[in-house]
Amino acid sequence: MTFKHGGFYLTPLLMLPGPTNVPERVLKALSRPVINHRGPEFRELYRSIFEGLRYVFQTEGYVFPLTCSGTGGVECAIFNLMDDGDKAIVAVNGEFARRMGEAVKAAGGQLVEIPIDWGKPVKAELVKEAVEREKNVKLVGVVYNETSTGVTSRELESIAKVAAEANALMVVDAISILGGEQLPVDKWGIDICITGSQKCLACPPGLSMISVSDKAWEALKRRKRPKTFYFDLLAYKRFHDERYETPYTPAVPLLFALDEALKMVREEGLEERFKRHARCARGLYAAAEALGLEALAEANARSNTVIAIKNPPGISDRDVIKVMREEHNVHIAGGMGKLRGSTFRIGSMGIVSEQDIIRTVEALEKTLLKLGYKLELGTGVEAARKAMK
Amino acid sequence: MTFKHGGFYLTPLLMLPGPTNVPERVLKALSRPVINHRGPEFRELYRSIFEGLRYVFQTEGYVFPLTCSGTGGVECAIFNLMDDGDKAIVAVNGEFARRMGEAVKAAGGQLVEIPIDWGKPVKAELVKEAVEREKNVKLVGVVYNETSTGVTSRELESIAKVAAEANALMVVDAISILGGEQLPVDKWGIDICITGSQKCLACPPGLSMISVSDKAWEALKRRKRPKTFYFDLLAYKRFHDERYETPYTPAVPLLFALDEALKMVREEGLEERFKRHARCARGLYAAAEALGLEALAEANARSNTVIAIKNPPGISDRDVIKVMREEHNVHIAGGMGKLRGSTFRIGSMGIVSEQDIIRTVEALEKTLLKLGYKLELGTGVEAARKAMK
Repeated sequence: MTFKHGGFYLTPLLMLPGPTNVPERVLKALSRPVINHRGPEFRELYRSIFEGLRYVFQTEGYVFPLTCSGTGGVECAIFNLMDDGDKAIVAVNGEFARRMGEAVKAAGGQLVEIPIDWGKPVKAELVKEAVEREKNVKLVGVVYNETSTGVTSRELESIAKVAAEANALMVVDAISILGGEQLPVDKWGIDICITGSQKCLACPPGLSMISVSDKAWEALKRRKRPKTFYFDLLAYKRFHDERYETPYTPAVPLLFALDEALKMVREEGLEERFKRHARCARGLYAAAEALGLEALAEANARSNTVIAIKNPPGISDRDVIKVMREEHNVHIAGGMGKLRGSTFRIGSMGIVSEQDIIRTVEALEKTLLKLGYKLELGTGVEAARKAMK
Repeated sequence: MTFKHGGFYLTPLLMLPGPTNVPERVLKALSRPVINHRGPEFRELYRSIFEGLRYVFQTEGYVFPLTCSGTGGVECAIFNLMDDGDKAIVAVNGEFARRMGEAVKAAGGQLVEIPIDWGKPVKAELVKEAVEREKNVKLVGVVYNETSTGVTSRELESIAKVAAEANALMVVDAISILGGEQLPVDKWGIDICITGSQKCLACPPGLSMISVSDKAWEALKRRKRPKTFYFDLLAYKRFHDERYETPYTPAVPLLFALDEALKMVREEGLEERFKRHARCARGLYAAAEALGLEALAEANARSNTVIAIKNPPGISDRDVIKVMREEHNVHIAGGMGKLRGSTFRIGSMGIVSEQDIIRTVEALEKTLLKLGYKLELGTGVEAARKAMK
């Protein structure tokens, strides 16, 4: 993907809302010879990953690596908890929350949606009203960071309290945020938390990681019948407890990579990592503002990992993406679901650095200028630089 | 995993019923920089994989790579086809067939098992009796090659005819055989065929591939509601038709590897590949016989990819595996399910070669001798050599 443009060879820069750039160390780990997933070397690998996952999830409980994408992780959470007709409240403020609702329906559950404007966060107050009105709620589902809108619902801790008071389980899709912003799973009382490998952990795609609280285990044991075989968490627990293995063949190369990626998280430290993500995001939002662009998310809900920007009048996100890719080898994404055609999204996750932000903003300035947008070159870069100081 | 023993460094040899040894070319492909799964490079990759999969499945229909293990592929097949209460007949002659039955139950289907002795193949006659007795059968499920018992059900084509005559869908778990022995999906009338990456295709684990016939699509479109979100084949079809993409983030490094592995299959040619698998298996069965060991499978049902051998009296499969691994760095597997503790299994798949067979038999001879079994060193190797001529 390295290509020549304007006399320079440009290496690709993935500023996508996943996958992100993957460090050389992690890429290299992928190519290790495959090992037997029923042998002693695997158990050592599994144990190391388990400890690394507990660190990033900030939990003393179980965390499992699943061989599937983040959507599979959400399916796992929902299908393990729902009996036929069980009621689930899902706050829908974007495409991924909508998908969680679809998973509830596929599991035979009764879905109660809390509709929220796309671009707005989930508020504890709204969830409280819903659980009080509905009664007998089995679970409350929230997407902590809506990848489709660049919105972080920062009242998550309060929302989890509301769910706990109603004796409902708190399920959190943290796919595009875990490892990039504060999320102490045990402390906040999250019963099931799901993330993906290719986001803030800077690992390649193909794995989803899921944590399970004691309260979730109790509910799981009471379920009438398993609604899934492949994702059955009791099987994962049994194999974990008995032999530090997974019940079915795992994606071993991706586990090698995940282990390496988790080591890098520990080397940097979670707090430092959160600060770096916040700093890079500040740079992008400041640049956008300086260039007269508008973020989709309202001020206090702006994501530090996915920056969604409204298309400037007369300019299509398709063209922005195309020019960014073809002339600058910087990869960003368009709008999703009902935001298709009106928004573009910049991922700022994983091993993202201030240099990456500067390169992205510089490419964006040139791209917009080429597409007919009025701006003075350097304005965005200067603003980003200042904001990241 | 390379280690020193008896003055020599020994590289590992995976003779497992999956994962298999992975060629250097394929391992290297894993480490390519990750690409955007919503960009043009991905579409090129996807198209190339699609054509390669059609070649190994011998189909003109759809084949999808799923991010999951083989068990996930089976769940996908079953969950897409079953409405609540639908009747599925599964011929159970081993652990993986048993698991297919579990998937039927998890999907809310009505499971009718045809119980068959472990070690025996599925006969068309038995399936015929069952579909005639049961009426209104939605699907017939068979494991073409039972990884747990080393049994290949070579009446598969006739079984598929029986299913078709009863207007039932034919679902085949071909996880440990596709690419290693004849299985023309279209010609034999297999409606859904599932395989895994880490078996005869010599790719690392983490992907399952699934083919879907026109008849299966018709059934799928008539289903009352989707029973799965992550595995919804209609979503896979839509994304395939519209953009040569997958609906959810795929395991991109594994797709790089799969593409390379499929190229190697085409370079060798399917027919040559089948012959090589048959030749290597002949070597192993001949060696076993010469050493006075007994295969679990009856003669005409012996698998060319998984060789299951009964423990010799007084010797445990655990010890055989341990000595093979620790002293020879040759990795084989034990018994599964109800065969745990009574059988050991040698995988002979993927890029397996005559040299690999000789090394395995030599290690096995020394291992058995050490464990107190009476044999003359070289007997097995000689028999294998002759059988592979």
